[in-house]
Amino acid sequence: MENTVIKGRLSALRKAMGANGVDYYMMPTSDFHNSEYSADFFKVREYFCGFDGSNGTLVVGQDFAGMWTDGRYFIQAENQMKGTGVDLYRMMEPGVPTISEFLEKNMKEGQTLGFDGRVISTSIGEDLEKKLSKIGAALKIDKDLAEEIWTDRPSLPCHDMYVLSDELCGKSFAEKLSDVRKKMEEYGTKVFLLSKLDDIMWLTNLRGNDVECNPVALSYAYITMDEFILFVQEKEVTAEVKAYCDKVGITLKDYHEITAFLEGISFSGDMLYDKRNTNFLIFKTMLGRAKESKVELKNEKNPTELMKAIKNDTEIKNIREVYLKDSAKLTEFIYWVKKNVGKVPMTEYTAAMKLDGMRAEIPGFIELSFPTISAYNANAAMAHYEAAEDNAAEVKAEGMLLVDSGATYEGGTTDVTRTIVVGEISEEIKKHYTATVAGMLQLAACKFLHGCTGRNVDIYARQPLWDIDIDYNHGTGHGIGYMLNVHEGPHNLRWRYAQGVDEALLEPGMIVSDEPGVYIEGSHGIRIENIVEVVKRGENSYGQFLGFEHLTYVPIDLDAIDTKYMKPENVELLNAYHKAVYERLLPLIQDEDIRAWLKDVTREI
Amino acid sequence: MENTVIKGRLSALRKAMGANGVDYYMMPTSDFHNSEYSADFFKVREYFCGFDGSNGTLVVGQDFAGMWTDGRYFIQAENQMKGTGVDLYRMMEPGVPTISEFLEKNMKEGQTLGFDGRVISTSIGEDLEKKLSKIGAALKIDKDLAEEIWTDRPSLPCHDMYVLSDELCGKSFAEKLSDVRKKMEEYGTKVFLLSKLDDIMWLTNLRGNDVECNPVALSYAYITMDEFILFVQEKEVTAEVKAYCDKVGITLKDYHEITAFLEGISFSGDMLYDKRNTNFLIFKTMLGRAKESKVELKNEKNPTELMKAIKNDTEIKNIREVYLKDSAKLTEFIYWVKKNVGKVPMTEYTAAMKLDGMRAEIPGFIELSFPTISAYNANAAMAHYEAAEDNAAEVKAEGMLLVDSGATYEGGTTDVTRTIVVGEISEEIKKHYTATVAGMLQLAACKFLHGCTGRNVDIYARQPLWDIDIDYNHGTGHGIGYMLNVHEGPHNLRWRYAQGVDEALLEPGMIVSDEPGVYIEGSHGIRIENIVEVVKRGENSYGQFLGFEHLTYVPIDLDAIDTKYMKPENVELLNAYHKAVYERLLPLIQDEDIRAWLKDVTREI
Repeated sequence: MENTVIKGRLSALRKAMGANGVDYYMMPTSDFHNSEYSADFFKVREYFCGFDGSNGTLVVGQDFAGMWTDGRYFIQAENQMKGTGVDLYRMMEPGVPTISEFLEKNMKEGQTLGFDGRVISTSIGEDLEKKLSKIGAALKIDKDLAEEIWTDRPSLPCHDMYVLSDELCGKSFAEKLSDVRKKMEEYGTKVFLLSKLDDIMWLTNLRGNDVECNPVALSYAYITMDEFILFVQEKEVTAEVKAYCDKVGITLKDYHEITAFLEGISFSGDMLYDKRNTNFLIFKTMLGRAKESKVELKNEKNPTELMKAIKNDTEIKNIREVYLKDSAKLTEFIYWVKKNVGKVPMTEYTAAMKLDGMRAEIPGFIELSFPTISAYNANAAMAHYEAAEDNAAEVKAEGMLLVDSGATYEGGTTDVTRTIVVGEISEEIKKHYTATVAGMLQLAACKFLHGCTGRNVDIYARQPLWDIDIDYNHGTGHGIGYMLNVHEGPHNLRWRYAQGVDEALLEPGMIVSDEPGVYIEGSHGIRIENIVEVVKRGENSYGQFLGFEHLTYVPIDLDAIDTKYMKPENVELLNAYHKAVYERLLPLIQDEDIRAWLKDVTREI
Repeated sequence: MENTVIKGRLSALRKAMGANGVDYYMMPTSDFHNSEYSADFFKVREYFCGFDGSNGTLVVGQDFAGMWTDGRYFIQAENQMKGTGVDLYRMMEPGVPTISEFLEKNMKEGQTLGFDGRVISTSIGEDLEKKLSKIGAALKIDKDLAEEIWTDRPSLPCHDMYVLSDELCGKSFAEKLSDVRKKMEEYGTKVFLLSKLDDIMWLTNLRGNDVECNPVALSYAYITMDEFILFVQEKEVTAEVKAYCDKVGITLKDYHEITAFLEGISFSGDMLYDKRNTNFLIFKTMLGRAKESKVELKNEKNPTELMKAIKNDTEIKNIREVYLKDSAKLTEFIYWVKKNVGKVPMTEYTAAMKLDGMRAEIPGFIELSFPTISAYNANAAMAHYEAAEDNAAEVKAEGMLLVDSGATYEGGTTDVTRTIVVGEISEEIKKHYTATVAGMLQLAACKFLHGCTGRNVDIYARQPLWDIDIDYNHGTGHGIGYMLNVHEGPHNLRWRYAQGVDEALLEPGMIVSDEPGVYIEGSHGIRIENIVEVVKRGENSYGQFLGFEHLTYVPIDLDAIDTKYMKPENVELLNAYHKAVYERLLPLIQDEDIRAWLKDVTREI
């Protein structure tokens, strides 16, 4: 059956392409800042082909429409694009060209590729520019063709910003800015354009609400040695924010003025930017101005990224407190699930709602740090499973429920996963569960020299699984923001070597997730995730020794542990962890039944 | 006191510099191929300043002489250069300029820096060229000024080459060459200059004897799609080698013709070379010709390096056998040391001589793979300790003797370290020794997915030491050649992250050393080194699992093991290893006393 809605939209797009001299038009999945989540405003690709997965790029020509996505979405994309006339390009499959290969082959001399230069990263833009210039094709990047066609388009997210106190942040904007300017000097630069939203929020001690689950405002920061200009949507600036900016010396300009502003700047010296988060239109604008002014654009990692990742003493203190409160609430939730499963109606979705509601009662709660993942039995084996209200499995008194959740509070952002036994489980599951727990605990217990990156220690989390011929196809850990994004760099815990990819050293004050898992298709999924803090463990002539401390204190489900699958020292680690869980959570839990239950589920084994 | 000999030589050098229009002359430590060891012919730096350490670069101007070396050699260099007028530049010390910084600052427009372009690596040459061109200074790289002055200079090493049979190598030259040409095609190149000596030997199935302990001949290989030209010194070509080359299609040219040959080549396409092992004179010659011919020089890793590192089935079979024979002999030596220490005169030197002599009796022995390290008690804590006949410690019946040794045999090259208890040792030493052994064993026992490099697994060797706040300042492991160099890449076992440094994946068939250690200055040094082979451990949907198998089977000294310092599973590993040592060595050991002793020292604990 034909999808006349999509076909009509594509026809209008082709008309607009003709009117704008564009032969191929490309629509990727991104906002203007390469953020992890995009608002509805940015869902142009979905509007023109129907596919709503988290990764996909649509390319349209006068006689062509193709959508590129990865293996997670082949089936979904095929279903959603039925009858649209859009071909599916299965990325990474043998014989399937990449988008740039396709364009190189199919575009002709004199033709033009169009895209909104604000939603394409600089590296992709540069790659296309280079390849297409070889065949004599051009780029047009200054026009968002969807603008005219998509008449009921949601507006650009625009929500009130707010100010965090210096007391809450542990460091004032002035102090942070001074650190940034020192780094600008080290790089030999006088100007710095910062496009990464969470970095801008961290630096200014401001927060916003323009990206789902990320407390950030759409913004750019233009930094010189004596000026700090913040580009945000005027409507987002509350009186409080305005007063704060006046006080600390932040000049406010409208978000939409950034390109015009960059076209007119006069440089006092070389300019620093980070290619990874600067969109192609901004880059091309800066490049043009820099060439005229005979200054260099220096592509370096945002200095803010590492500063933000190393939590200061205030942040660490608040994070520890917030994680305890969050842990206590999740523990109460686990108790609730175990007591009620099979007795009250419960689906993956209603369980998640229950937990979200419980978290919202914690004083200082701001928002969830990501949509709660609640996955029952075989659903937990799917990497990107999302239960919806009208499409959620019933949670019965058998098997396991995996819950991955977290929130941003005044004082920190949390992330934690527990896989809860709700009934009978197989011996195989116990084996997998025990190995997962052993991996999580022994990584957290390791001691290492400063100079290690996540690639040195990741193997501790995987070893118990690798020993039984199992792996998980995701990283072991990611950094986490302070009242900010639940995923942040520059550090992470991963094992695979990738040529040319920079690794960040693990530094005291960093926090990182520790989340091994087992995913057996059609059967079960297990993930156990604690957040740990990098701490000092003594210094001598060999260097600074480091280790991890748990921030998360939530019981590990002993119903799925069999010590015969664990090395003796890992049993000791589990007992020590449970002792700490019990001691730390007890003061936060009032209900006598839960207190008694907690004592039992954290017992020594 | 003045060193008139050195001063006289420097004065002659300055005269030659003047005659050749050279303002500064630089003399590093290298042969023409960046080999690990240099023959006496190449010791120009030592000739002109007296310092004979393994790392140092001498720079001479009309009113200046400075020698740069690293921290290992500050004291030695100061002593050896007393009275020469040569200043010591302590590399990496605060405020000490690098050589290029020094030259940038002190050379003037129109001046010339001279060096023998054959003993400078391309990357260093390019760096100097770039920096000096900025200040208007030039390079002169085609003249070895020592040639005229150093009248009693040792001649360039020139020893007979020999042919290894295809049966011994497991793969013929023709098969290897065909693999190399496939890689040349992959790189889009038609010509390949190979300058790395052990790679040339591996590829041709030839061997030589021009570099100490490395069975290689000074050579270059020029490879096109239909030609293979080997540049070696004519005198090294025996009738056997000549006949072999004729048969397999190797065209022989004289070693000294390489530059003239490169000046005259006509390219059939782009040229492949590896910057790391191509000297600057060769590079500049090729670059000149390439520009004229409008072809590109492509700097890529020698494809031979990885091919050579992955041992074929024949090589692995022979290596296993050779390692057993070598292990048995070292075991007999350990027995000899233990029985004779305190009873017969024994120094570090005579003990080494004894071992070298025992090894030479093994059928198929060719040469030592490196000079045997024999270090008693505190001497073993020094990273570069070498006992000389007239300067060796007496080995008494107390403490420990560290012996690091190996040889090249028909069928493989070995490398092994044992630290032998010869008397009373402290509790601290037992703790250190036990942790070292635990690290060696648990690294060898680990299981990992294909995709890991040495950086993923190195931590297994260090963890027992890091847990007691100790580290060793060297890599955990290096690759080893097959009847070739005892150190080879591309893989290794190291932990420290270095930006931009490539890592090689661990592949089945690679062999690598596993050698943690403890070095306590003024007290003791411990190193335990086994060589292990990378082997397959089953494949499934997660990928190819890999692990290690020991190649070395020599008892671990139980006199220094205390199980209270070991995890239970590492005690199991030690017992399993000793069981294998006993079973495998027994058939190779005839002496009844040694057989009885072996049973005891490999007992279960």
